[in-house]
Parts: sequence; C-alpha cells; structure tokens
Amino acid sequence: MIDSLPMDTPFLAVDVDVMDRNLRRAADDARSRGVALRPHAKTHKVPEIARRQLALGAVGLTVATVGEAEVFADAGFTDIFIAYPVWPSESRAKRMRALAERVSLRVGVDSVESAEALGRMLEGSGAQVLVEIDSGHRRSGVAPDQAGVVAASADRAGLPVAGVFTFPGHGYSPTALRQAAQDESDAVSIAAFVVERAGLQAPVRSGGSSPTRAATDTEVINELRPGVYVFNDSQQVELGVCDWSDIALTAHATVVSRRGQQVIVDAGSKILGADRPAWATGYGRLPDVADARVVALSEHHATVHYPDGAALPELGSIIRIAPNHICAAVNLVDELVVVQGGTMVDRWAVAARGANS
Amino acid sequence: MIDSLPMDTPFLAVDVDVMDRNLRRAADDARSRGVALRPHAKTHKVPEIARRQLALGAVGLTVATVGEAEVFADAGFTDIFIAYPVWPSESRAKRMRALAERVSLRVGVDSVESAEALGRMLEGSGAQVLVEIDSGHRRSGVAPDQAGVVAASADRAGLPVAGVFTFPGHGYSPTALRQAAQDESDAVSIAAFVVERAGLQAPVRSGGSSPTRAATDTEVINELRPGVYVFNDSQQVELGVCDWSDIALTAHATVVSRRGQQVIVDAGSKILGADRPAWATGYGRLPDVADARVVALSEHHATVHYPDGAALPELGSIIRIAPNHICAAVNLVDELVVVQGGTMVDRWAVAARGANS
Repeated sequence: MIDSLPMDTPFLAVDVDVMDRNLRRAADDARSRGVALRPHAKTHKVPEIARRQLALGAVGLTVATVGEAEVFADAGFTDIFIAYPVWPSESRAKRMRALAERVSLRVGVDSVESAEALGRMLEGSGAQVLVEIDSGHRRSGVAPDQAGVVAASADRAGLPVAGVFTFPGHGYSPTALRQAAQDESDAVSIAAFVVERAGLQAPVRSGGSSPTRAATDTEVINELRPGVYVFNDSQQVELGVCDWSDIALTAHATVVSRRGQQVIVDAGSKILGADRPAWATGYGRLPDVADARVVALSEHHATVHYPDGAALPELGSIIRIAPNHICAAVNLVDELVVVQGGTMVDRWAVAARGANS
Repeated sequence: MIDSLPMDTPFLAVDVDVMDRNLRRAADDARSRGVALRPHAKTHKVPEIARRQLALGAVGLTVATVGEAEVFADAGFTDIFIAYPVWPSESRAKRMRALAERVSLRVGVDSVESAEALGRMLEGSGAQVLVEIDSGHRRSGVAPDQAGVVAASADRAGLPVAGVFTFPGHGYSPTALRQAAQDESDAVSIAAFVVERAGLQAPVRSGGSSPTRAATDTEVINELRPGVYVFNDSQQVELGVCDWSDIALTAHATVVSRRGQQVIVDAGSKILGADRPAWATGYGRLPDVADARVVALSEHHATVHYPDGAALPELGSIIRIAPNHICAAVNLVDELVVVQGGTMVDRWAVAARGANS
C-alpha cells in the first residue's frame, strides 16, 4: 500500500523494489543458463524500465509494433526486434527504413509473400529478418518445416536472415506449460535445421514467454523474450509461475459500494483490462487478501468477492488489485506511480501506450 | 471502407453518416415517447459527438467519472450527471465542488454512509444527488425499498435529491432484454414511491441502456441514458438490437498472416478490447463478411475465421472489424478517423480517453 494517495483512484502503482528483484532474477537466470535475454517491452512501454533491463545484461529489446520501436529508438535504444510479421505497406516500410538508419533493426516474417514484399521495401536498409515459426499456438508463424523456404525467399529478396523465433503462447494454461516448452524446442530445432539445409544460417533461435521461461530448452533456444515477468499479474500466480510477493504492479481502487460478502470498487475494465482466460478464477485477484477475487467487471466497477469470514473493507477504503493481464492494464494509463517503501518516489510516463501501428 | 488510408493500421474509423442516423433515430424515438434523453458520453468521449446529441434535443450528458465530467465541462457542456456512486475523498470532493460552480451537476449515491459523506463535502455547492437503485444487475445501487432511507439521509445532509436512477445491465443477454426492462420499471416505481413516502420528491426517474431502450417502460422511466447506440458494436447486433448497417465505428486492420480458413490481422485486444460475454460468438465480427468472426485475440493479433466457401483476403489487404464492446475500443485510441462517403473528412480527439478517476 501507499502512505498517501498521489492522485485520485483508480491508478496503477509499481513497487520498484519488487520490480527490480524480478528484473535481477530473470537476468541472473538467463546468465546462468547461457541464454540471451531480450525482454518484450510491450509489457511496460517505459524507457526507464528498459534501461534497467539493459543495465542488467539484456542484449536488446523486443517490441510488437513499428510504433513501439519508434518510441524506444527515440529514447536512445539501439537494438530492437519487432517480433511480429509486419506487413510493409508503403508508409510502414518508410518508417522501418528510417528506423533501420538509426538502430539495429530486426523484423519478423512468416510467409514467402511477405518476405518478398519486405525485400522490395527494405533491401539495403540494414534491417534483418527472423522467420516466425508456429510451435503450437496456432497464431502467426509458418510450420517449422517451411522455415527454410521462407528464409531462402527473404535471402533472395536481399534481406539478411538472422534466425528464427517462436512464441509458445499455448503454454498459457496451468496444465500446458511444460508441453509448450517441449513443442517450442522441437519446432525451433526443426526450423533451424531446415534453414541450414537451405544453405543459410540461423544464429538467433529466439523463444520463451514469462510462464514457459523456466522450462525453456536452452540447448536449442539461445534468446528469451519474456515480457510480463517485470511486473507479474494474477494470471502468472494462477499459472504457478510466481507468488503474490512477486507482484510489482497493482491497481489502487476505492470501495464505493458494498453488498453482502462483496464490495464494488472504482477500478473497472478501463484500467484493469477485460482479459479472462477460461482457466482464470476471476478478473483479477487481491494480493493482500487470500482468495478474494474480482468476480464481475464493468467499465468502472469491479465486484470483489471476499471469502467467508474475511473482514470487508469500509466504504472509502483503498484496496489493491493485481490485474489478470498486466500488459493490457499498463496500456490503459498514461503514467505509472512509482512506489518505494510505501512512498511515491516518481511517476513514469507510459511512453509507448497506444502505439499499435 | 476508406478510399485511402489516413494512417497505418490499426485505427478506428467512424462513418459519420451512419452515426448521425443513429443519433437522429434515438432522439426521434425519445421525443415520440415523451422521455428525456441524457446520452452516456463514456462511449464516445468526444465533445463534437456530444454537441450533436444536444443539438438533436438531449437534455444533458451522462458520464461515469469526475474526470469525464471535467473534460466535458471544459468543452462547454453545462448539465452533467455522474451516474456513479462517487466516493467523496477530500481531493475528489474538491474537484466536484469546482465542477458544481460551473455546471449543473448531479451525482449518484447508493448508501446512507456515502450520502452523509457527500453531504459533508458538497453541502451548499449546488450539486444534487440521484439515488442509485439495483434493478437486478447486482452491481452498485440499493434495493428499491431502501431508496427512501438513502434519499432522506442525503436530504438531511443538505443535498437536494433530484430523483432515482438504475442501470438494467442484466439486460445484456439475448434472452434477458425484456425481463430486464420490466425489472427496471418495477424497481424504479418502488423507489420513487418510497422516496415520496419519505416526504421527498423524485422528479427524475432515470434508466435505460442501449439494448433495453426500446423496451423501457416510459410510463415509469422519464429519462434514458444509452451510450453505445451512437456507434453500435458486435454485441448489439448479436443482441438483436441493430443491424450491421447501423455499425458506425469499425477497426481497420491489415492481414499479416494466413492459415487455412483463417487470417491474422494486426488489430488485437489493444485496439478492439478483450470484452467477451458468454453469449457472444467471438471477439468481434466483420460487418462486410457474413459469419466471419474473431475467434482468438492477442494484444496485436486477431485470428479471423471465414465461413467455408468465403474468399479469404490477400496478405496486405485491409479489413474492417466491429469490436464486441465499442466503449472499450474507443478508450484505447487517442483519435477517431472520421469518414464520409468513403473519404476521411476529419479526425476527432478522444478527449476523455483514460479519464478513469
């Protein structure tokens, strides 16, 4: 909690000591396993946090969009991977060429057509590509055995191929974590093999996510791209990946109404986000009250159910909620309140908020 | 669709002719039924749209937060109802007093404790209160038979009582619409009765939502507060409340990947929002392709499934998606592209985006 409110609720506050511990642990873990860490900055969107990640040894940043890459390039970062099969419209290609002039830029590609289009637009810009592989998430990415074809077409189109990458997003379920890490290893090793058979190299074999990270096969994967680990969230706790003490970012909300074993607070989906996977037990949890959870969510109301016997907070009280999916929550605010030892010490602008394009 | 892209995808575009038709229809409907229209501005957050609503006869605006009220007061609006049981912390009370000096301000209240707290903070400011009633949504609001107690405590605390209000949010289901409108009528008539038995008046009896609006009992309810009707969305179509031709706001997205009968586009939950009620058939629909829908959603990827036999769009094509819940989508962008006859004619800043507190 915070000793005095820096602004009216609801707001998002980072406990910077918890965050720094999360950053150090991931950096130490990557170092001890001999794998490069390239954190996904879509989670935090804050240059100051990215600086801390690099100071602890991260090799560069991952982002999801050209817009995010521009924000971090403006903030002085020089090694950026857009882990997305970006389609190079004329306007977007122009922006990527401008980026490639000032940073080491890598972009995802997952088809022969987009490899050829990227080649027409970016040849000679210095931008490199990584071929995206589907390791089981069934989203973007080619089948592992097609990686060589895509890599060869990128190479023919004049784009240097830096390697392959995948996102084992099907590991986002308590029972699927280990299998997803195994799938990732299988897919990336096949992809790297067929790229080499096509006469090219795949020095970068990039994977990982916050939940699968601990199980990643670092004999195959040599670069990890977790994002959520910076802050953690209710999903990570319910996945068994971290404890409540590892939650570095919470929404602070005011109790505005009470009914039975429930209270209504003023943090709704417009600050928590509405993500709720089928396996989640609610729309968010209370790190300070075991088994209290958000059981219903509107735009400006969260209905929080307290377990039998738990004392309900009074009207006007401030409570803390750990959102289900922290990336969605951060993208809803312009700034994060930075707290240390219960006192606000700073505010960080969410510089890349809304940078979707 | 749009004849030339005003910016890189994804972005949200308003078809202003469709929007104006939606506004006119609702205004005409309210006029013909003899009920006041006080549209909820949390949906659009755009002063230019609120101006059009008032020009067509709306009696004032509804908002959800003090921050939204401030944005619309700054834009020149003078009659604002914060339809929320606002807890008057010292800081928030100060902001409400400042608001009450420049606009006709009404605020929700749903307990004796908050009536007393509001009275201590706002007595003499000119602010009035409306007692919030729970008509079945089980969120905030007192039981109808308790409305007199809350109204009397507000009156004793020095706050003029303007009436009662409810949100029949349990009507957000295809089978619950008519019953919710009936519940609303029952609850508000009981509440008005007990307020009058407590020796006070309830001249304003406010209710309504976009889906239940047509079924609202205007013998009881004399003010409607719909929000979504301005733009409509996939939820409203699936609730049977409007047609695809009534969808005034869509996300424009680029096809970045293809797999089987599915394409992946670059509009994810960070622009569509992640809302998905249990009865919805997906995370969004395509107004231009019958039965195509978003079957999976990540932050920057929507997986769109096309029905058998439908031609899939090529990589790089632009498609339009109607989000499930338009209020959540609008809150994710800084501006709306305004389109008329397929040409961009303006851009509107989403002035109250993120005004959660």
